[in-house]
Amino acid sequence: MGIFSKLQEKIKSAIPRSVIRDLSEVLKSEQIVLDQAGLQAFETDALTAIQVLPFVVVMPESTDDVAAIAKISHKYDVPMVPRGAGTSLAGGAIPLSNAIVVCLSRMNKILDIDLMNRSAKVQAGVTNLAISAAVDRDGFFYAPDPSSQLSCTIAGNIAMNSGGAHCLKYGVTTHNILGVKLVTAEGKILEFGGSFLDPAGYDFLSLIVGSEGGLGIVTEATVMLRAKPEGARPLLLGFESHEQAGDCVAAIIGKGYLPVAIEFMDKPAIKACEEHARAGYPLDVEALLIIEFEGADEEIDASFQQILRIASEFKPVHKRIAGTAEEAEAIWLGRKSAFGAIGRISEYLCMDGVIPLSKLSHVLSKITEICNSYKFQVSNIFHAGDGNLHPLILYDANRTGEFQRVEKCGAEILELCVMAGGCITGEHGVGLEKRDLMSLQFSETDLINQMRVKLLFDPNWVLNPDKVFPLELAETFRRDESSSSDGETA
Amino acid sequence: MGIFSKLQEKIKSAIPRSVIRDLSEVLKSEQIVLDQAGLQAFETDALTAIQVLPFVVVMPESTDDVAAIAKISHKYDVPMVPRGAGTSLAGGAIPLSNAIVVCLSRMNKILDIDLMNRSAKVQAGVTNLAISAAVDRDGFFYAPDPSSQLSCTIAGNIAMNSGGAHCLKYGVTTHNILGVKLVTAEGKILEFGGSFLDPAGYDFLSLIVGSEGGLGIVTEATVMLRAKPEGARPLLLGFESHEQAGDCVAAIIGKGYLPVAIEFMDKPAIKACEEHARAGYPLDVEALLIIEFEGADEEIDASFQQILRIASEFKPVHKRIAGTAEEAEAIWLGRKSAFGAIGRISEYLCMDGVIPLSKLSHVLSKITEICNSYKFQVSNIFHAGDGNLHPLILYDANRTGEFQRVEKCGAEILELCVMAGGCITGEHGVGLEKRDLMSLQFSETDLINQMRVKLLFDPNWVLNPDKVFPLELAETFRRDESSSSDGETA
Repeated sequence: MGIFSKLQEKIKSAIPRSVIRDLSEVLKSEQIVLDQAGLQAFETDALTAIQVLPFVVVMPESTDDVAAIAKISHKYDVPMVPRGAGTSLAGGAIPLSNAIVVCLSRMNKILDIDLMNRSAKVQAGVTNLAISAAVDRDGFFYAPDPSSQLSCTIAGNIAMNSGGAHCLKYGVTTHNILGVKLVTAEGKILEFGGSFLDPAGYDFLSLIVGSEGGLGIVTEATVMLRAKPEGARPLLLGFESHEQAGDCVAAIIGKGYLPVAIEFMDKPAIKACEEHARAGYPLDVEALLIIEFEGADEEIDASFQQILRIASEFKPVHKRIAGTAEEAEAIWLGRKSAFGAIGRISEYLCMDGVIPLSKLSHVLSKITEICNSYKFQVSNIFHAGDGNLHPLILYDANRTGEFQRVEKCGAEILELCVMAGGCITGEHGVGLEKRDLMSLQFSETDLINQMRVKLLFDPNWVLNPDKVFPLELAETFRRDESSSSDGETA
Repeated sequence: MGIFSKLQEKIKSAIPRSVIRDLSEVLKSEQIVLDQAGLQAFETDALTAIQVLPFVVVMPESTDDVAAIAKISHKYDVPMVPRGAGTSLAGGAIPLSNAIVVCLSRMNKILDIDLMNRSAKVQAGVTNLAISAAVDRDGFFYAPDPSSQLSCTIAGNIAMNSGGAHCLKYGVTTHNILGVKLVTAEGKILEFGGSFLDPAGYDFLSLIVGSEGGLGIVTEATVMLRAKPEGARPLLLGFESHEQAGDCVAAIIGKGYLPVAIEFMDKPAIKACEEHARAGYPLDVEALLIIEFEGADEEIDASFQQILRIASEFKPVHKRIAGTAEEAEAIWLGRKSAFGAIGRISEYLCMDGVIPLSKLSHVLSKITEICNSYKFQVSNIFHAGDGNLHPLILYDANRTGEFQRVEKCGAEILELCVMAGGCITGEHGVGLEKRDLMSLQFSETDLINQMRVKLLFDPNWVLNPDKVFPLELAETFRRDESSSSDGETA
């Protein structure tokens, strides 16, 4: 609890009243949330197991608002927790009790659409789907598609380097962002990138994407637009075992095919989703693949024939090609509401790891073993094509100590991913949830190097200070750094 | 000449003999180049106008060799200049007279090919084309394709974040690298990324790509492989003016089409290339577009019909579809040897800027105006689809003061790119050539932030120390930083 308690102590010695007074001088009263009921709306994100009531929530409407807020944070040394729509599954937007929560949801304007440069400039609080909606009539879209795309913001997508089902073909957020405007911890406004590829100088843009609000608050982004394909339809393949499905995915990718998406669902997921979406999923298979291709109708059908030929080696027991747009839509609705559908059955912890595809079927059986040893049921629904796993571990939230056990089980799964040559996060980020697991992935030297970069951008460590890095290590690091810079002043 | 002279002074106080002695203890004698004739082979790169004889050249064969060399550099505070094949057009590999040139060309092994994960792990001195050659039979390739791909190394591609004609569809180097192993200035071995997308922690991998050998020496890389398309053929479109050609490109991209490549050549370039490659380029047009599509034969033809429909508005006077693979090959041979073909006519300075596509025809006419004002002939051959310009300014190297004049003319062109919302480098990097022009693009604060990051990785500023940053600013920055850290020790 090191940093937590240290920060709590710090805020006690500050004068919260003056913070509020200063905030009221730069913001309108309806931009400041102070009442208990209002604050409760912000006490958690999609990692609902953890709740912390923030000190104050502010709703900036412009980059200048954010800069003014950051200056106040800097003046009083009060932490800021940036927040988009609060859909982080890793607890990236969970407040600190002494923090100013900077909620970007009012910054939802699309500032410029430039089809000739295939780009759009938006305020960071705009939702993911709103960008695609704004250019839909012109035949374009914004590619990364997290399941939460209806509500999640581009700010959150940038913070977490979000992915989605269709990222197999189009890459994750970092491959689809051309530039950002951001406010530093000290209230300066910087711009990185632009509306072109490969800017000069070090690639700070890529450093910002995925930095989880720890290097600055992104207020505007220039995103890459892509032309919508002529059409897109999925093929469903059902298998009698996870291993067969996993090996089939590896064979498809290994032969060089690149569908837009290859999604994997296991039996519990299929059942829950079918009840929700009535997509016609087969209920008698152990594993289902949803494989989508884009293009003209004949191209899609030709691709399906090739995939069916490859798949035959793995003996699929169910094969169905979506013939119409409506069928395709129902199939995707089922997949995209999978987490919600499982959530109707049980509390769950959604893990997010990524592994080399050649290890897929090995890792899937190990996950079952680990969960069995804890007597947890597990459901796997994930982006198979790029090896991004999402085991949902089901647990009973009302049983004491059960959340701690499920966290431990999850940590074992992520350790397994690292051992297989993978990583503790595929697209959800580290956040609060996995900060201590960073030591599985990185040596202490690596982590210190990363924290040094944070310290350059955020010298007082006020930006989302309790996320991403292992708490104790971060505290030791900051103590060492501040004693060496004390020496500097002497 | 600040840093230069400062470094020269430093080396005088060092003991070069001991450096050589230490190097001989960790390397075989055939890995050390010391004789005048041998050293001369390394005195320049593709920016041949500048030559500096290095102090010693070493040829490591492994990451451990590089680490041992870095430790010696660190011990004696002697700079290192990393070098791939020496094909940098920006002078990125030009030595310092007191530097150890670390030439990676012997590190040319392909370590592992993993088709199932669509990746290959290679030593950094492997050539770009060798990677594609190694996986060609399996139907895969490595996408970025600089014109120098036959000789340039993946190390150099990573240093400069290189592009190529086909990067319109596949992205530049940073979009095609999954992981690197690198040796730090102090001789430590680090790994960033892996064989999966979106690693946890800050995106140091993207920071390394494009850092021009200033943050570490990359010794191994894991690169993304892609499946070869069924086929690919170009369409040639000739126009009576640069403006019509430029507007046609903007219209194609603006309507959402994404060919694999859209290349632009002007009349002098067409003539020189046709003499070299006999590709059947039209000699009576002012501007030629080479537009390539991939896929099955019918798909390609369908795309060409759509492009011809869009192009008709801009009244092309020449239209030819490559019907066979041989025709396609000749057309690309001409384009890829364009720089060489122009080089047979005259010395030239090859500029490299990038602009938003909507400004293409405006910028092209301005470039002609600028070159006219200097009475230089200019030839434009470039990647039009992503706005990456390559004006070649022809000049007479034998006339005194002419190189200074051509540099000034080039600087005006790059300033024009920045003013148009673009950037001073598209794919060649900053190197020695454009270090002072970085101030056109970035504020002093921006540059200081970038230098702080370099200092974290390279505390003694020994890695390619005279590149990328404006010399005087870098010197002031280092003086300020070292006086503040002197204070720290006191």
